[in-house]
Amino acid sequence: MDLRTAVVGLLVAAASLQAQAPARQALVDDLVTANHILANEGVVDGYGHVSVRNPANASRYFLARAGAPALVTAADIVEYDLDSNPASSVGNNTAAGYMERFIHGEIYKARPDVTAVVHCHCLDVIPFAATNTPLKPMYHMGYFIGEGVPVFDIRAAAGMTDMLVSTPALGQSLARVLGRRSAALMRGHGAVVVADSLHVVVAKAYYLNVNARMQLQAMQLHGDGVVGLSPEEAKKAAQTYERSWDAWKSRLPR
Amino acid sequence: MDLRTAVVGLLVAAASLQAQAPARQALVDDLVTANHILANEGVVDGYGHVSVRNPANASRYFLARAGAPALVTAADIVEYDLDSNPASSVGNNTAAGYMERFIHGEIYKARPDVTAVVHCHCLDVIPFAATNTPLKPMYHMGYFIGEGVPVFDIRAAAGMTDMLVSTPALGQSLARVLGRRSAALMRGHGAVVVADSLHVVVAKAYYLNVNARMQLQAMQLHGDGVVGLSPEEAKKAAQTYERSWDAWKSRLPR
Amino acid sequence: MDLRTAVVGLLVAAASLQAQAPARQALVDDLVTANHILANEGVVDGYGHVSVRNPANASRYFLARAGAPALVTAADIVEYDLDSNPASSVGNNTAAGYMERFIHGEIYKARPDVTAVVHCHCLDVIPFAATNTPLKPMYHMGYFIGEGVPVFDIRAAAGMTDMLVSTPALGQSLARVLGRRSAALMRGHGAVVVADSLHVVVAKAYYLNVNARMQLQAMQLHGDGVVGLSPEEAKKAAQTYERSWDAWKSRLPR
Amino acid sequence: MDLRTAVVGLLVAAASLQAQAPARQALVDDLVTANHILANEGVVDGYGHVSVRNPANASRYFLARAGAPALVTAADIVEYDLDSNPASSVGNNTAAGYMERFIHGEIYKARPDVTAVVHCHCLDVIPFAATNTPLKPMYHMGYFIGEGVPVFDIRAAAGMTDMLVSTPALGQSLARVLGRRSAALMRGHGAVVVADSLHVVVAKAYYLNVNARMQLQAMQLHGDGVVGLSPEEAKKAAQTYERSWDAWKSRLPR
Repeated sequence: MDLRTAVVGLLVAAASLQAQAPARQALVDDLVTANHILANEGVVDGYGHVSVRNPANASRYFLARAGAPALVTAADIVEYDLDSNPASSVGNNTAAGYMERFIHGEIYKARPDVTAVVHCHCLDVIPFAATNTPLKPMYHMGYFIGEGVPVFDIRAAAGMTDMLVSTPALGQSLARVLGRRSAALMRGHGAVVVADSLHVVVAKAYYLNVNARMQLQAMQLHGDGVVGLSPEEAKKAAQTYERSWDAWKSRLPR
Repeated sequence: MDLRTAVVGLLVAAASLQAQAPARQALVDDLVTANHILANEGVVDGYGHVSVRNPANASRYFLARAGAPALVTAADIVEYDLDSNPASSVGNNTAAGYMERFIHGEIYKARPDVTAVVHCHCLDVIPFAATNTPLKPMYHMGYFIGEGVPVFDIRAAAGMTDMLVSTPALGQSLARVLGRRSAALMRGHGAVVVADSLHVVVAKAYYLNVNARMQLQAMQLHGDGVVGLSPEEAKKAAQTYERSWDAWKSRLPR
Repeated sequence: MDLRTAVVGLLVAAASLQAQAPARQALVDDLVTANHILANEGVVDGYGHVSVRNPANASRYFLARAGAPALVTAADIVEYDLDSNPASSVGNNTAAGYMERFIHGEIYKARPDVTAVVHCHCLDVIPFAATNTPLKPMYHMGYFIGEGVPVFDIRAAAGMTDMLVSTPALGQSLARVLGRRSAALMRGHGAVVVADSLHVVVAKAYYLNVNARMQLQAMQLHGDGVVGLSPEEAKKAAQTYERSWDAWKSRLPR
Repeated sequence: MDLRTAVVGLLVAAASLQAQAPARQALVDDLVTANHILANEGVVDGYGHVSVRNPANASRYFLARAGAPALVTAADIVEYDLDSNPASSVGNNTAAGYMERFIHGEIYKARPDVTAVVHCHCLDVIPFAATNTPLKPMYHMGYFIGEGVPVFDIRAAAGMTDMLVSTPALGQSLARVLGRRSAALMRGHGAVVVADSLHVVVAKAYYLNVNARMQLQAMQLHGDGVVGLSPEEAKKAAQTYERSWDAWKSRLPR
């Protein structure tokens, strides 16, 4: 390769990076908004996290460094490779990462179709995991529950633990239980939710919880006589949830 | 018709339109407020809609173009004919309409007494639809529940669907199930509520949900021993809800 | 009576009125605050009302004219005699009064010890009235529930009605059911709560509702094994609730 | 002791006090924040209190004078000895103390490992105390519930009372029931929670209540089949809750 070719190649690469910069910034901003919405709507409290795959490089994902979702800013976003090691950094690369970031990395590895992941301690689903009560899709906003929502029990993978999915092996176990589905409950812990966009994953996490609350109410009325969506209805009722995102964004403080 | 007659006719028509304009604007403003109240009080989230019949032309109704109720402005309101085609427009006539606007148009056709319609995914009524548990009027604010609240099951009308009332035929089926009543539940979806004014329809949608929550609590105390209003009491206890509107309006953000 | 005596008498009366004016204004301001607290804490919504007896004249009480509690101002307060006719007025004497103001007047007649009255549609007590489930004092903040909380059924007094206590006779029936107690439920309607001060009546209405919610939860855990306060504990645990008032006042909007 | 020695000793003591002053002020500020967080997150209402042991003197603790937690300022903080007598004062030493401050003093005496104490009327735990239903750790955030949460019944210690832990003897009884654990329920009253830091005690009080709510829901799904954390998992899942504190602090009004 002569100098000229090398220089041209360098210029092309630089131009490509520059062209990607605005898209990257927009995605990071959307990820910050996703953090704030999840906190403001009570899907996460001080704990829980949301990530998005880098659309320009499918083997990278963006996730905030360890911190409360309500307080995340663009400077907190780190880019990880799929082994969940920091790759390049938007802000401070040396900041501590979430101990459970392997949830994200291992699911992105196992599921090329997944673009965004939420891990939450959604309060209304934990009683379902604690009693092995299958979730049912109660209305079209919870359509994806029709795929089934398996329960990940960390004991089956690793015996007695601190309940955290804090190693690649545990992330792989969780990804296996999740399979091709949109969500899995985690016994004594919470849930993981995936989707093909950041807006949709936020909404699925929100409605997973809402749907659980309604199902509990329905079971109190008539335990074994609850009729939600049929499997076929659930498939047909897929949502973009774009109006939810608009409404939630408009409700953020400041 | 001579020129003089034509000109006079034109002037009369223009004056009439001009006279209607403030009333029309006031109604549009009230419809915007209704959208915001329903969102702020949690009757709708990013989804759901509210319409009002044009008092100057009973074969037209006003409804926002597709969007989250919390964000609706006067510029978003469209005037529809009863086949739910855009008629004239307040704002941008070409904007996409709600896919389920046939709920509104077909009910206005079938019910000349109805002036306003709400469609919501009210969370507390969905468990009642999922278990076919009849709603009872628990207090005077839920008096209209004494008429009975039927359940519309879209399967009976159209088999396996995406759950949406997105055609004139489905709107007609829903209107038939609603009959002469104030409200109908929609299995796996939500509810539709009608009234003879915008203020009353907002309140009926709100109290339908509140009443369901109280009924579930009462059934937890004493399943088959719940005594709400008798049919005669329910008829006598009709409300204007005007103070609710005042209170809710004063709570809107900004 | 000579002129001198008359003039002196007039001056004395005027001085007395002037001396009372600041106290009266302070009481009216407190009554406005009570309205706002009850609305802000969800004890009342657009409906419900609170009154206070005139400490300078035991046969008069203050109550807002008909309107949503959240919006009451000092100018809305009217002074009523115990037959619930407007006596003198702080603001606009000709404004429509609450149709159910007889709840207040007839209780003040029957209960010289009562200084303040709340009528609310407290949502958590209505299921108890609907199922004739006796309320129990679950903790010291609900100590007064140890006196027993009877249920007023308007059918027993007047057959089929619009559920409203809108006549002196109905107010007397309600006062009879209330007896010497702090609170009575009203079937299909709500509750009435009384106390010897405005601050205490607001707190009793609030904690009546909170206590009902906790009792329902306890009964879901162990229906007939719920142990709250014993009668003697309930008597000893009387509260002033003054810190509640401070906290609620500090939370009011603006 | 000659004058020189006395003066040097005085100067050393003054320097030491001065060195402690910033740490003391920071702790007082953190205690004020703890009061506000507990109120803002609904763990306490107008009643309840939180204290912290003086790190510079283990036989002293800081607690606000009697008042609603939401309104506490640094000037309200009093330093108590372990008999709960005012020792020195940050603000106004003569202000009335909480009648139940013996809860704090007697626990600090009995538990050298305890650095902070919360007493609350947490609404979701009272039904568990009223029915003697053992609390279980439902998820890792409630890990400390795995130690067991005993119920203090004031009748066993003192017969018929006003329910208040208002004497040293009652404080000692409560401390005995608490034992080595993180929390004890108080029948007909609320709970006491302890920890080795102010941030952790606030979080334990919060999650004690959240965990109770989830356990009730799980028991409604499947009464005797609720599986939370195993004892070993609970031990391993200990939390610092530091992100919760960050998130709650950022949500405080103003």
